[in-house]
Amino acid sequence: MSAPPDEEVVLARAYLMRVAEPPAFALHAFVDVVGPVEAADRVRHGDVPEAVQSETEARRDLDLAGEDLGNAEKAGARLVVPEDPDWPAWQLLCLAPPTDRGLRGAGPPLGLWVRGAVPVANVFDRAVSVVGARAATGYGEHVAAELGYGLARAGMTVVSGAAYGIDGAAHRGALSAGGPTVAVLACGVDIAYPAGHSGLLDGIAAAGLVVSEYPPGTTPARHRFLVRNRLIAALSSATVVVEAGIRSGARNTATTAGALGKVVLAVPGPITSAMSVGCHDLLRTGGAMVAGSVPEIIEAVGPVGENLDPARRDRRRATDGLGEQALRVHDALLREESRDAEQLAVESGVPPARVRALLSELEFTGHATRHDDGWRQQKGGDRHA
Amino acid sequence: MSAPPDEEVVLARAYLMRVAEPPAFALHAFVDVVGPVEAADRVRHGDVPEAVQSETEARRDLDLAGEDLGNAEKAGARLVVPEDPDWPAWQLLCLAPPTDRGLRGAGPPLGLWVRGAVPVANVFDRAVSVVGARAATGYGEHVAAELGYGLARAGMTVVSGAAYGIDGAAHRGALSAGGPTVAVLACGVDIAYPAGHSGLLDGIAAAGLVVSEYPPGTTPARHRFLVRNRLIAALSSATVVVEAGIRSGARNTATTAGALGKVVLAVPGPITSAMSVGCHDLLRTGGAMVAGSVPEIIEAVGPVGENLDPARRDRRRATDGLGEQALRVHDALLREESRDAEQLAVESGVPPARVRALLSELEFTGHATRHDDGWRQQKGGDRHA
Repeated sequence: MSAPPDEEVVLARAYLMRVAEPPAFALHAFVDVVGPVEAADRVRHGDVPEAVQSETEARRDLDLAGEDLGNAEKAGARLVVPEDPDWPAWQLLCLAPPTDRGLRGAGPPLGLWVRGAVPVANVFDRAVSVVGARAATGYGEHVAAELGYGLARAGMTVVSGAAYGIDGAAHRGALSAGGPTVAVLACGVDIAYPAGHSGLLDGIAAAGLVVSEYPPGTTPARHRFLVRNRLIAALSSATVVVEAGIRSGARNTATTAGALGKVVLAVPGPITSAMSVGCHDLLRTGGAMVAGSVPEIIEAVGPVGENLDPARRDRRRATDGLGEQALRVHDALLREESRDAEQLAVESGVPPARVRALLSELEFTGHATRHDDGWRQQKGGDRHA
Repeated sequence: MSAPPDEEVVLARAYLMRVAEPPAFALHAFVDVVGPVEAADRVRHGDVPEAVQSETEARRDLDLAGEDLGNAEKAGARLVVPEDPDWPAWQLLCLAPPTDRGLRGAGPPLGLWVRGAVPVANVFDRAVSVVGARAATGYGEHVAAELGYGLARAGMTVVSGAAYGIDGAAHRGALSAGGPTVAVLACGVDIAYPAGHSGLLDGIAAAGLVVSEYPPGTTPARHRFLVRNRLIAALSSATVVVEAGIRSGARNTATTAGALGKVVLAVPGPITSAMSVGCHDLLRTGGAMVAGSVPEIIEAVGPVGENLDPARRDRRRATDGLGEQALRVHDALLREESRDAEQLAVESGVPPARVRALLSELEFTGHATRHDDGWRQQKGGDRHA
């Protein structure tokens, strides 16, 4: 691991994150070219390209870097920057300036305000976001909690937005499995939003991370949720939508996740439920795969050929190996009463000579038993067919 | 319309349908070549190609044609044959001998025993099959009844298998809409199977059709359900699976429908329900499209560009037309309190000059109103953006 970044760098990035409303594409590119310290200095003096000027002029006189870092520390938080060995670089690689409105909100963050005990490194290595409606149904919350629990048990980090409904249930499920879970906020990490999740956020910070690209004290606003959603999508390998109305933030996260090349899954639900309409629309339009269980999600996330859902490995029926005619003869057999080959031929419509050959086969594969007065069906024929 | 077929043809086909267990590919091809009357005569004498011999020798001495036709008449039924002007020829065009086990059960019928008042012609022109589990849940039966009702109201014929659970609910829904519905049986049309659906079958025959390729008196057997399922699939333009276990007859119907080139849809349900596992698996593997509502089904069935689901035509939000920066300025506006351009610039992070331009735009599109002391948000901006 390399050393932590200079204080000068951290102060410069803290300043820039307050000055420009994320996502600030031009500023990000500018920082990449001249470095955060020079970028901050030139933004302060208005000595920047026009696109950067446009992103920064409204707030460039607002230098609260020291104050923000102090407030973060008071809240048990820190600023993680790209110069930090902890920076989740590869997860954020997918973020790039938007090419159209569908990708609105994409673009990498200048830093991440982080509250919590867990190191940022590795926590996102196997991460799945579980998102959905605030006005969730009992079904949705049940499923979100089950998935949160199951994914955490399987060693995945559950990422969500700490909102009421699905988000909260997913976090709670993960916490109850003792797994780390990450809440990505659309406000400062020092703000308990929603207020009723204050205790939950404390619990998340104790066992995982509360993350935001907004400086301490920033209040939530609708456009910030859209921008925040891209971070949820980017920091996870897959996004699972549990319940969503036809227009919803969770769908927005799913669309962004898809655009970022991430795996998108949606949980089906009753078609009589308005809270599942968004999920079904994602499934209908090919925007998502079906998330029916934790193993299905893990299989979708994992490398090809690994993580195969064990529940699907052996769903064969005892008569699966039988051909058309053998099945007809098998069906003509009775369990409690014997029939001879001629009776079986008439019943099955299979020629008598063929019936006799098939009966030997069925006996060998354990589907039929020979008795003194004829043949009977044997339940649960074996698999050596 | 041409004249009804000769009695000789009807008798020959009735005999052949009793002799060979459907689907009888070789016999069908033989009938195509030599005609039903000669085919029947030669089958009786064993003067047939080996493949036909194999399909017919077990029962060729069983000539019950006259008796079967008499029993049918007593049950209010008749035999419809390909020589009949009523024959649903184009629907059955998709049926051909199987190329592998996946298509087991395909192959056209030699005739159809039909009980009911409705002419066979046209009843299948706009037909959708609605199938599913016998051990359906309350949710599944509710959805099946709703879909049956809605499809019938939309002028579609609802085809199903008259089983308990989903099938029965779909038939009942269609009947309550006054629409024709068709039950395709795996036994004779004179047999009330299942027994508890005796009244339902009478109702179906009164308003629609009860159909089978099995002679009167034939009892149901498992292999017959598989064979029957291909008829359900073939006679409909689309198959909707409402509820299905992971291994089930409904899935078999869906697989066959897909193999026959028909539209396949599956109704999602709770992932906590074993009765929806088959549907979700169909959706997961791409074997079916999502059936979320009657309009979605009709859209899937209809010609391209027609039958568009009206519910999806206008789901735009008032702020959909706004660009990135305009949305940020819009979100910074308050409803009950005015803000000036400078405040909005700091709040939104958009440069002041740009804020002013955007405010004019937002005023024009009805998203903002100008007041003496600044600007406010206007709820429900209009659509002339």
